[in-house]
Amino acid sequence: VSLSVQFIGTGSALPKKNANPSCQYVFCENRHFLIDCGEGTQIQLRKHGVKFQYIQGIFISHLHGDHYFGLVGLLSSMHLLGREKAIDIYSPPELEQIVRSQLELGGARLAFDIRFHNIEKNDEGIVFEDKVLEVHAFKLKHKIPTHGFIFKEKKKLRSLLGEKFHKAGLSIAFIEKFKLGEDVIDRQGKQHSYLDYTANEKPSYSYAYCSDTAYSENVISWLKDLDVDVLYHEATFSASEKDRAKKTMHSTSVDAGTVAAKSGVKFLFFGHLSARYDYFNVHIDEILPVFKSVKPAIEGEKYRIEELLRQH
Amino acid sequence: VSLSVQFIGTGSALPKKNANPSCQYVFCENRHFLIDCGEGTQIQLRKHGVKFQYIQGIFISHLHGDHYFGLVGLLSSMHLLGREKAIDIYSPPELEQIVRSQLELGGARLAFDIRFHNIEKNDEGIVFEDKVLEVHAFKLKHKIPTHGFIFKEKKKLRSLLGEKFHKAGLSIAFIEKFKLGEDVIDRQGKQHSYLDYTANEKPSYSYAYCSDTAYSENVISWLKDLDVDVLYHEATFSASEKDRAKKTMHSTSVDAGTVAAKSGVKFLFFGHLSARYDYFNVHIDEILPVFKSVKPAIEGEKYRIEELLRQH
Repeated sequence: VSLSVQFIGTGSALPKKNANPSCQYVFCENRHFLIDCGEGTQIQLRKHGVKFQYIQGIFISHLHGDHYFGLVGLLSSMHLLGREKAIDIYSPPELEQIVRSQLELGGARLAFDIRFHNIEKNDEGIVFEDKVLEVHAFKLKHKIPTHGFIFKEKKKLRSLLGEKFHKAGLSIAFIEKFKLGEDVIDRQGKQHSYLDYTANEKPSYSYAYCSDTAYSENVISWLKDLDVDVLYHEATFSASEKDRAKKTMHSTSVDAGTVAAKSGVKFLFFGHLSARYDYFNVHIDEILPVFKSVKPAIEGEKYRIEELLRQH
Repeated sequence: VSLSVQFIGTGSALPKKNANPSCQYVFCENRHFLIDCGEGTQIQLRKHGVKFQYIQGIFISHLHGDHYFGLVGLLSSMHLLGREKAIDIYSPPELEQIVRSQLELGGARLAFDIRFHNIEKNDEGIVFEDKVLEVHAFKLKHKIPTHGFIFKEKKKLRSLLGEKFHKAGLSIAFIEKFKLGEDVIDRQGKQHSYLDYTANEKPSYSYAYCSDTAYSENVISWLKDLDVDVLYHEATFSASEKDRAKKTMHSTSVDAGTVAAKSGVKFLFFGHLSARYDYFNVHIDEILPVFKSVKPAIEGEKYRIEELLRQH
C-alpha cells in the first residue's frame, strides 16, 4: 500500500488509559518503520496487530523518556522471537550507548545487527532513502535536541498502457524507460514517445511528524519546502495554557493549527495532549477557526494518506 | 495492615495480555515497596490502584529487561507528579549508571534523591531494616547475578492489657518495657511482671520472592532458616520442558513445588510462565502432587499473608 500511518501511542509524559507514550507506525510499499518508541510500545503494537518483526527502522525524535523508554524492551522481544534481520535506528547519538549497555548487562547476544545512525543536534536533511521513499529529519524547538521527520514518497513510475505497448510489438527492454518518462530510439532509428505507451504516474504523498516542539518557523519552512500533505503536530496544551506551553517548550492547539495553516498542508492530526485533558473537544474547538481539516490522533487508528486526502 | 502482597506483573520476558513483565507490590504497616519493575509497571500500578508516590523502596532481582525496563519511566513519572521524598533502590550495581544517564539525557533535574544500594553478585543478608520489617537478599541461580528477597516482619510488641494496667496506677513510662516483654522495678523497689499487664504479641509473617531461578538448594536453606510463610517462586516451564528450563536456568512447575515442600513454607504462589502457556492448569496439576497449598499469581490480586494463612 501507499504511504500510511497508524497511531500507536498518542499521549504525553504521564501515560494513562488510551494515552500511551509516543509511537507511530509508518508503512509504505512493504517498508515498515516506527517513529518514537515510548514505554509499553511492544504491548501496544501487539494490541493493535502490528507485526513487529517487519519493522526495519526506528526514528527517535529526542531523548525524553516518553519517546524512547520502550525501545530496548522491543529490541529484546525481537531477539527472543528469533529475529535475524538487522534493524536501523535513527536517533540522537547518546542512545546507542544506553541501548547497548542494557543489552550487554542482560547477557543477550543478539542474532541481529542494530545499526545506529546518529542524528546530531544540528543535522538536517535526508536520513533514509531507497527507490520508493525518503525520510528527512529537521530541527524542532524543544528543551533538548529534537528532530521532526518527513516521510516522502519518491516520484512514482508512469503506468504502462499494456495493450497499446504489446500491440506495437516493441522490445520489453523499453518498458522501464517509458515508465521513467524517457523516449526510446529503436534499432531502425525510429523514435518512440513514452507518452504513447504510458499514463501519468500516481501522485506521491508525504507525512510529517512534529513532536515535541514549541511553535517554530523552521518547521513551517520544512513543511512548505517538501510540500507535505499530512501533518502530525503535538498540541500538549490548550490555548489557555499558553504560558505553560512556552515554559515547557510545547505547543498549544492554536500553535498546531497555525503551523498547519501557514505551511499549506492538507490535513492535520494532533496529539501528545497533557494528561490533564480527558477529551479532545477543547483542542478541536480551538483549532477549527485556524485550520479546518483536523482530527485528533487516536490510538489504533490507521490512515492511508491517499485515501484520507480523497475524503477531505 | 500487616505484611501483604499484590501481584502487578506476573508474566515472563515476552509480555502478553494479562501477563506483564515482573513486578510485585509489598506493603506492611505503612511501608511500601516494589519488587522488580518491568516495562509498563507504572501503567499497571495505575490500573490496579497502587498509589506510586507512597513507594519508598524498589528491589531489583536482576538485570534482565523484563525485571527493570519500567524503572526509569516510573521514576520520571514520580518526578513529573511532584515527588520530593527520596526513594531507595536495591539492585545490582550496574543499574545506577543506566538510570542516572537516562535521567540526565532527558534533562530532568529531579526534586527527590535516588539512593542506590548495591547488591553485589555474592552478597547475601539484610539489605533493609527498620523497627517493623527486615528484607533479606539471597542468591538465586540464574544466567546472570540474581537475588531473591525475603520480607520478614520483626517480632511484634506484646499487647497492653489497658484496663489492668490503668487500675494498677503504674507510670506510663513502663508501657514500652512491658510491651517489649521486660519486667520493671518501681521506685519502691517492687518488681512488676510484664506478664501481668500484657498479652502475647501477634505472630510475625514473612514472604519470599524467588524469580528468576533454576531449582536451588541455597533457596531452600534460606527459606528454612528464615522460617518463611509464603513463597512466590517462578515456574517458567511445565515439567515436560525440563530440558529447556535447565538450559535457560529457569524452574519447572515441579521445581517450584519441590522447593515449597522441602523448605516448609505454608503457601506457594507461582508465576513468570513462559508466553507459550495460556492457562495455569498444567502447572497446577503438576504441582499439586508435590505441594498442596498453591495458587497461580494473578495480576491485580492482593493478599494479606495473615489472612491467607488463616484460610489455608
